[in-house]
Amino acid sequence: MSDEVRNRLAWIAVDWGSSNLRAWAMDERDEVLSRASSDKGMLALTAGGYEPALLETIGDWLPATGRVPVWVCGMAGARQGWQEAAYLPVPARLGELAKAAVAPAVNEPRLDVRLLPGLCQHADPAGRTFDVMRGEETQLAGLVAREPGFTGLVCLPGTHAKWAWLEEGSVTRFATHLTGELYRLLASQSVLKHSVADAELDAPGCREAFVAAVREASAEPGRFGQQLFGLRAADLLDDTLPSGAARHARLGARLSGLAIGLELAGMRHDLSDAAVTLIGSEALCTRYTLALEALGHDSRRLDGEAAVLAGLGLAQAGLRQQGDDS
Amino acid sequence: MSDEVRNRLAWIAVDWGSSNLRAWAMDERDEVLSRASSDKGMLALTAGGYEPALLETIGDWLPATGRVPVWVCGMAGARQGWQEAAYLPVPARLGELAKAAVAPAVNEPRLDVRLLPGLCQHADPAGRTFDVMRGEETQLAGLVAREPGFTGLVCLPGTHAKWAWLEEGSVTRFATHLTGELYRLLASQSVLKHSVADAELDAPGCREAFVAAVREASAEPGRFGQQLFGLRAADLLDDTLPSGAARHARLGARLSGLAIGLELAGMRHDLSDAAVTLIGSEALCTRYTLALEALGHDSRRLDGEAAVLAGLGLAQAGLRQQGDDS
Repeated sequence: MSDEVRNRLAWIAVDWGSSNLRAWAMDERDEVLSRASSDKGMLALTAGGYEPALLETIGDWLPATGRVPVWVCGMAGARQGWQEAAYLPVPARLGELAKAAVAPAVNEPRLDVRLLPGLCQHADPAGRTFDVMRGEETQLAGLVAREPGFTGLVCLPGTHAKWAWLEEGSVTRFATHLTGELYRLLASQSVLKHSVADAELDAPGCREAFVAAVREASAEPGRFGQQLFGLRAADLLDDTLPSGAARHARLGARLSGLAIGLELAGMRHDLSDAAVTLIGSEALCTRYTLALEALGHDSRRLDGEAAVLAGLGLAQAGLRQQGDDS
Repeated sequence: MSDEVRNRLAWIAVDWGSSNLRAWAMDERDEVLSRASSDKGMLALTAGGYEPALLETIGDWLPATGRVPVWVCGMAGARQGWQEAAYLPVPARLGELAKAAVAPAVNEPRLDVRLLPGLCQHADPAGRTFDVMRGEETQLAGLVAREPGFTGLVCLPGTHAKWAWLEEGSVTRFATHLTGELYRLLASQSVLKHSVADAELDAPGCREAFVAAVREASAEPGRFGQQLFGLRAADLLDDTLPSGAARHARLGARLSGLAIGLELAGMRHDLSDAAVTLIGSEALCTRYTLALEALGHDSRRLDGEAAVLAGLGLAQAGLRQQGDDS
């Protein structure tokens, strides 16, 4: 297996986040030969630790000689990361991220590492607000690689959910909502921690509880703080809820619905008849699909891993093109 | 001093919360003779620990003989407390809380302890939602003791901010917002923890930052999650902010304004030309006064300690009356 990877390896894709890194061995046709991952995310590393962490993860893939392009998106390019790849301000052409990539110095001669930049947005009279992303821009580039000239609204659910407005393959503006982090803090650190549990939506009653909560929060977002405390009060008083673990799952589904419903309330004026493109994991995108549906909006999904590989592949294609041109 | 307390002691007032207890030695005219406190709140105690904790705190005040009424509000009356004083459902007459008090068994013959009940609210077609309070009802009773027949909207800011609608001395409904806890979680446990610091509003620019944030959150509560992430982005990008500690204070004031502004957005339909009565500490009530003012609403303040003593005093007055009648 390792021999086959070594023989066919054309380049390496890396998504380096705050708490972990994922890497893919890619062949000449951008097919995945192998996968690897590590828990050495940005928060666990200092600048000198990146190259060793990378070699530990992908060292087995490297052929004996030759130099392998390694395209990296995410927090490795942050100021506190391996080396800063400064944010590109919006509007930004997604097909040109690689032009702003930086190449950190490495000791291993077989590595040709490039860190892709994130995007930033400054407050302006047109209603843009300060915002940053690092990693998601590469998934957006992946969408554009698959659908050149893409125009529309894209949502990348997660700890910090991103919404991006794309026009002809450029990001014109974007908005980050703290949704996933709010959910996690409330479920595990607040007074609600004894009342809610993470819930699968196919558990009895959970889908209905989730959808009802989406509707409530999006209809009255100002009552979010009240709706939250209401979960605790319902746990104490609501006789219609099941008991035990089923009760906490139901309330957990409701908490998830409140958090996503609040986010959709904020996006209401931007949602239209056009389908929202969701990029991310199936589980999380399913929640957003349900939530959008409850408010009368269509969506479609692009897999998160497919998007990041297509985005990094776009950078690699540019490099290959350069090589062919020279 | 202790002798004077022992000689003049008529009753003892206790506010027993989750994380601490505060006690006051009171004379016959409901004047405070002495104060004491302890960090033995509900979370630090099991049922058997309450009497020793109380004696440790107020034992010095007790005369050699005779039985002293001890009126207790707060979490000591919770199911997980000393002994449950079951919630009274709304509508509830605040002058009659003492009728639902419970008297836990005690070993010390000089103690005559009564735990006041909290209030609960069940969901109903009139728009009430599940809610509970324990402790704040006694402060509301204090307002009614001072202003018999009070009618109006009352706000008790805090970790779990309470809004109560009073009619002729009864609570007809109430709403709890998780505001203070949201602020604390976000300021100390979220991605924002490196960007914000607790701020005094009289620090340069902090009052303005607070008020602007109140306006933004109350105008667009659905964007709360986005406004939160915007604090992080502003910390990274906003050149108009001061640097260092002043920067974090400014952003902390903004976070506080966002949390309170979200709450006021939820209360918007209930706010009118009538002044809101705030009950609580001067620092926190000042923020609410400013926030309400920014949205065009008047308020007035009743001190939180004065309110709880007047509420417990109302219970004691009923006991005294009983004694006189018998």
